[in-house]
Amino acid sequence: MPLSANNPDRTSWLHVDKNSDFPIQNIPFGVFLTRDDIITIGTRIGDTAIDLGALHQLGYFDDIPLTDDIFLQDTLNDFIADGRKTWRAVRNRIAEIFDAKNTSLKNNVKHKEIVLFRLDEIEMQLPVQIGDYTDFYSSIEHATNVGTMFRDPDNALLPNWLHIPVGYHGRSSSIIPSGIPVHRPQGQTLPSGASEPVFGPSKLVDFELEMAFITTDANDLGEPIPIDEAEEYIFGLVLLNDWSARDIQKWEYVPLGPFLAKNFASSISPWIVTLDALEPYRVDSPKPLKPQLPYLKYKGKKSYDINLEVAIQPEGAKETVVSNSNFKYMYWNMVQQLAHHTVNGCPVNSGDMMGSGTISGPTPDSYGSMLELTWRGEKPIKMKNGTERKFINDNDTVIMRAHCENDGTRIGFGEVSTKLLPII
Amino acid sequence: MPLSANNPDRTSWLHVDKNSDFPIQNIPFGVFLTRDDIITIGTRIGDTAIDLGALHQLGYFDDIPLTDDIFLQDTLNDFIADGRKTWRAVRNRIAEIFDAKNTSLKNNVKHKEIVLFRLDEIEMQLPVQIGDYTDFYSSIEHATNVGTMFRDPDNALLPNWLHIPVGYHGRSSSIIPSGIPVHRPQGQTLPSGASEPVFGPSKLVDFELEMAFITTDANDLGEPIPIDEAEEYIFGLVLLNDWSARDIQKWEYVPLGPFLAKNFASSISPWIVTLDALEPYRVDSPKPLKPQLPYLKYKGKKSYDINLEVAIQPEGAKETVVSNSNFKYMYWNMVQQLAHHTVNGCPVNSGDMMGSGTISGPTPDSYGSMLELTWRGEKPIKMKNGTERKFINDNDTVIMRAHCENDGTRIGFGEVSTKLLPII
Repeated sequence: MPLSANNPDRTSWLHVDKNSDFPIQNIPFGVFLTRDDIITIGTRIGDTAIDLGALHQLGYFDDIPLTDDIFLQDTLNDFIADGRKTWRAVRNRIAEIFDAKNTSLKNNVKHKEIVLFRLDEIEMQLPVQIGDYTDFYSSIEHATNVGTMFRDPDNALLPNWLHIPVGYHGRSSSIIPSGIPVHRPQGQTLPSGASEPVFGPSKLVDFELEMAFITTDANDLGEPIPIDEAEEYIFGLVLLNDWSARDIQKWEYVPLGPFLAKNFASSISPWIVTLDALEPYRVDSPKPLKPQLPYLKYKGKKSYDINLEVAIQPEGAKETVVSNSNFKYMYWNMVQQLAHHTVNGCPVNSGDMMGSGTISGPTPDSYGSMLELTWRGEKPIKMKNGTERKFINDNDTVIMRAHCENDGTRIGFGEVSTKLLPII
Repeated sequence: MPLSANNPDRTSWLHVDKNSDFPIQNIPFGVFLTRDDIITIGTRIGDTAIDLGALHQLGYFDDIPLTDDIFLQDTLNDFIADGRKTWRAVRNRIAEIFDAKNTSLKNNVKHKEIVLFRLDEIEMQLPVQIGDYTDFYSSIEHATNVGTMFRDPDNALLPNWLHIPVGYHGRSSSIIPSGIPVHRPQGQTLPSGASEPVFGPSKLVDFELEMAFITTDANDLGEPIPIDEAEEYIFGLVLLNDWSARDIQKWEYVPLGPFLAKNFASSISPWIVTLDALEPYRVDSPKPLKPQLPYLKYKGKKSYDINLEVAIQPEGAKETVVSNSNFKYMYWNMVQQLAHHTVNGCPVNSGDMMGSGTISGPTPDSYGSMLELTWRGEKPIKMKNGTERKFINDNDTVIMRAHCENDGTRIGFGEVSTKLLPII
């Protein structure tokens, strides 16, 4: 099925600001609570949210094979499980319905009243029930920075790093949508020079700038996904702030990896931008520095040129942008991650989420965490309000944004914005 | 509510073998497919499976506040979410219905036809939808053995081990019930002496003998569970075989922990034995070797005397018992694990599963993995059929069993039995 929804010449009869992340070429998917307290699946054009459950009930998807309640659900899992052919048919149809030349809904005042919402009338929810959350560690700049700081600058990358898209399992239960505040976590840390740990609030709360992809049902237990097929199982992407408590992490992570340092919260942007919408922004991945095993070899452009930005907004002050990075810097791409994850037969289901790992670029202003941006706190960052930050302070809001842009079309993710509250 | 279901003097009108794991004092909970292809929640007495959905429809639970479809589900998650008071009321009622002195169901042939099944008429399913699976590392003997083999015999325990119930996140999607076979995984390994990794079947597939507890909805994001309340949120336990590929693990696990070495499969026993049923088998935990932080200090007996056994059955041959251990050896107990897991505010939900980590006892015949039992393969184990095992061979079946016993009452878990098939 062609990606007619991507037609760059199409405009919508809904108003779209010139610099909007959500032109009619985007058509992301999300879940929201309406003014009538109903949960529904929806999309967004400009600053208008669109109730897909209502559109379906009104017959606008009648010739697409969909169950009656596919959009009247509190997660996208079942829709995602329907597979790529269905996602494309629905996304193409939405583009047609809202095309400037199509008057069927545009001129139906009653239908528009039921289907369209202003953003202040809705409350975005987690878009999927995340069965399993995996976090990779796929930025060579990030892995090198961390290795340089904590191990050995001359051997910053561990021996397996150039051979394996290193990953580990995260916690699904603490994944929250943008807008939900997070409390500073408490835990065990080993103060510098001490021999016994102490208990208390983490002093080094950090963000990690990541993108994450959401999968559809991919394979049964025991069946690897070949790398050439991996893309078929990726529905779309969100922004991910993988909150981290550096002092807790340092004490707990040997030998089994990060645990409480990470699982107090991970925040995601609420609109899933489909891989289809990102099609015009494909780019080559970085060239491998070492040969990769055949199951990790792929053909074509499998990275995406997505501009990333992180800002910190102190309580009652203006925000300060602290990092500008790009998703294209990732050394290991998504099809490599998914092929690796399943090469042992591990099953991947609809709604699973896989994070890229912290996305650091090549320059110090493109690093994806305060740990790297301030180099362990040695180089604090000045805020516009005159204060300094080594890590994240109580009542700071961390805001991440992402968008692609070329030939005058911009496809964006909106933002993931999370306030850090003091300990409970 | 009193635990009348635990009355040791009670007998059932259903036949129960003397050495059965499932006397009327047990009353575990599970999910099974019936001869009519219906999925239902059930329990078991002796070798009779009992359809709780049918019992409820016939009115046997009418005065207990339960939704009509609470047992007509394919997982126990909603029932577990109802909380301890409901679990106890239902378990006590089941004990009454099947008490030798109670003739109401016993004499109702029609009802018995609907409610009772022989074991060969049903197929056990995964008892819960596991939202998040956490695996701890709480046996001091296991951690010491692994540290001795792979690091330094003089400093076998890492500095954090005596302070933290070390744990990490596992994969939910590959958890399977007893009886489902597993394929030997493929993956990257670094052959001894080589500088580049190779791809192929794991040569060192191992079991890990564990118990795991299943939780109910416990806390919201940001709210720790105090250790004194932790027990309230534990529904019950199962046996867990945490399959491990040692060669894949060795190459991949630094610095973020085990990943593909573990997530190809984890097998559990299908009947959840409630914490209430295990009440008579409480014992003290081992004395701490170092002071523990206040949030990890508990009162009373929080360990359980559960005898454990692992057998290997080569294809077409008799099984050989390779390990006898006990759950009481765990250095860190379940309330410490749950208090630690949530001290940073990580939310725990109904159906989450937390594994103990490999349970090794103090003697070499009580170790909980082939890695330890054969000491990295240096001391192969003789099978009854004359062959030897360093790790697990293709077409071997690994069988784990567990039971408690005192004063003539035995409460058991049945078994988790999994055949290892060759690579797919």
